[in-house]
Amino acid sequence: MTEDLSRYDSIRAVLWRGDRLRLLDQRRLPFVEDYIDCTTPDDVATAIRDLVVRGAPAIGIAAAWGVVLAGQRGRDALADALPRLRAARPTAVNLMWALDRMQGAIADSPDVQALVREAQAIQDEDLAANRRMGALGATLLGERVGVMTHCNTGSLATAGYGTALGVIRAGVAAGRIERVYAGETRPWLQGARLTMWELVRDGIPATLVADSAAAHLMKTGAVQWVVVGADRIAANGDTANKIGTYQLAIAARHHGVKFMVVAPSSTVDMATPSGEAIEIELRDPGELLTYSGQRTVVDGAVAWNPVFDVTPAGLIDAIVTERGIIEHPDAARMRTLFT
Amino acid sequence: MTEDLSRYDSIRAVLWRGDRLRLLDQRRLPFVEDYIDCTTPDDVATAIRDLVVRGAPAIGIAAAWGVVLAGQRGRDALADALPRLRAARPTAVNLMWALDRMQGAIADSPDVQALVREAQAIQDEDLAANRRMGALGATLLGERVGVMTHCNTGSLATAGYGTALGVIRAGVAAGRIERVYAGETRPWLQGARLTMWELVRDGIPATLVADSAAAHLMKTGAVQWVVVGADRIAANGDTANKIGTYQLAIAARHHGVKFMVVAPSSTVDMATPSGEAIEIELRDPGELLTYSGQRTVVDGAVAWNPVFDVTPAGLIDAIVTERGIIEHPDAARMRTLFT
Repeated sequence: MTEDLSRYDSIRAVLWRGDRLRLLDQRRLPFVEDYIDCTTPDDVATAIRDLVVRGAPAIGIAAAWGVVLAGQRGRDALADALPRLRAARPTAVNLMWALDRMQGAIADSPDVQALVREAQAIQDEDLAANRRMGALGATLLGERVGVMTHCNTGSLATAGYGTALGVIRAGVAAGRIERVYAGETRPWLQGARLTMWELVRDGIPATLVADSAAAHLMKTGAVQWVVVGADRIAANGDTANKIGTYQLAIAARHHGVKFMVVAPSSTVDMATPSGEAIEIELRDPGELLTYSGQRTVVDGAVAWNPVFDVTPAGLIDAIVTERGIIEHPDAARMRTLFT
Repeated sequence: MTEDLSRYDSIRAVLWRGDRLRLLDQRRLPFVEDYIDCTTPDDVATAIRDLVVRGAPAIGIAAAWGVVLAGQRGRDALADALPRLRAARPTAVNLMWALDRMQGAIADSPDVQALVREAQAIQDEDLAANRRMGALGATLLGERVGVMTHCNTGSLATAGYGTALGVIRAGVAAGRIERVYAGETRPWLQGARLTMWELVRDGIPATLVADSAAAHLMKTGAVQWVVVGADRIAANGDTANKIGTYQLAIAARHHGVKFMVVAPSSTVDMATPSGEAIEIELRDPGELLTYSGQRTVVDGAVAWNPVFDVTPAGLIDAIVTERGIIEHPDAARMRTLFT
């Protein structure tokens, strides 16, 4: 670690230990805080595939350290490890981006210390971006506000601090946030299981609500901002994020609640003109038909399980990246920061 | 039963058998279709308290038959049973209403056959109201539409057929509905567990979605109507219903999707001027912190668990009761049917 952990920021899920990568096992949270030690690149690939580590930035960082573990075993091990790590979760863009960077480092220098430096840089840059976004986003919040968030965008999903949850951490530290409301985030319950764990663990005043209670909560006046992450931001500011984000944005606009998207610049895809061009992944309907492996819905039932939805830029008050803030995003304003 | 069960309408949860009341055990659905026989009024009170039977109209009907079982045991049993049944679920308005009717019948005639006739009348009138609402509501739907619903408003919650689900049954039978989308309805999952069971059982094309996927579903164009029940309708048309209904109404208006409330006239409370005057019950936060008795959220976490929310009349396109349809409800239009 290159920084002291402070109040409201005590969690790190990806820890390099010189000869091993220590990963907080997110499958066992919130009840067991267990770390798994990976001593080989295959250990890392397996941990990524089995969801020991999740969250796009965290996956990329773990994979980079997997390349270092391979480099410590020599040139053959490196050639073997890269495709295995790349295949661990083939759809995660950050995984490919991090492995491309490591491959560039290998091409520049065969020295293991160079690989260590590159992996550490990837990790440090992610943390720095999150801290920068936290500071920027917190300036928008106002005073003594309630903030609603969705899914998990915290230390568990990144090198640390988090994206949307980083803004929340910064806002709490600055005394601007009175209470955080976390939606459960069906069907995976990342909000209930992971975000609530981070918030309780860091002593941040937090309340869990059903996803469908968000509008009623807003009507009570308890929430002034919705702050969420992003999986992909199109050139016009349309934002793909966890299913349910779009519904929150509509409810926020209806109640005059502000809506903030927080994501590193690597999430911005200027090659995608608008949200219309973003394909929405459909996952196994079984995620809605079962709970903890137990069937909850009658046999023969059909379910529709989109993972993401797209929030149009018109419903977004601010997009916060480490390069700066874009208020009322549209294609022209996006081009001022991303070209 | 006074009618033949037909296609799209095969389920009855409350069955009078001359010397016993047979109740479909809703706690065990959707996996076990088990009926419990109640031979004493205390059996009925226990079944209501333990949620063997749920849904305000169904509870009232079961209690009425409980009074008949008491009457069969004589005058002392009757005096004993009424307060016990009344206390089974003290907040259910329909329970009080049905027991008041039975008490009136006892005052008019001590004859057990008169009690049987009154209980049967309560049951038959509920079924008739549901069929009438179904026919009325189905005329509004248009052709080849997709319909979204929330919670369970079906045969399980009533004498049969259902309120919102009655409109859906009538719409399917008339060939107007192509597909029904049921929201899970956290935290109790009445949509996932009970509504999907009714729809699959009756061969109605149905798809389960996460509550937070509703807006994204509407954006795809798959839904033309949201059809829901009501727990209380104020004099100006503001409607209290299961938590999440308000969020659906906001999303529906945003997408130009129509919004229909279906409830018997006994749900209309002209003494309540508007939704502002409706107190929203908060239930045990544990319902969000546990699943099937197992804790899912970190110890120390706080949750907010309102059971209902209020949808303002301005977001409702039609209120359907057995007395008729009120389009674009407001206080003046409500008075034309309810005075």
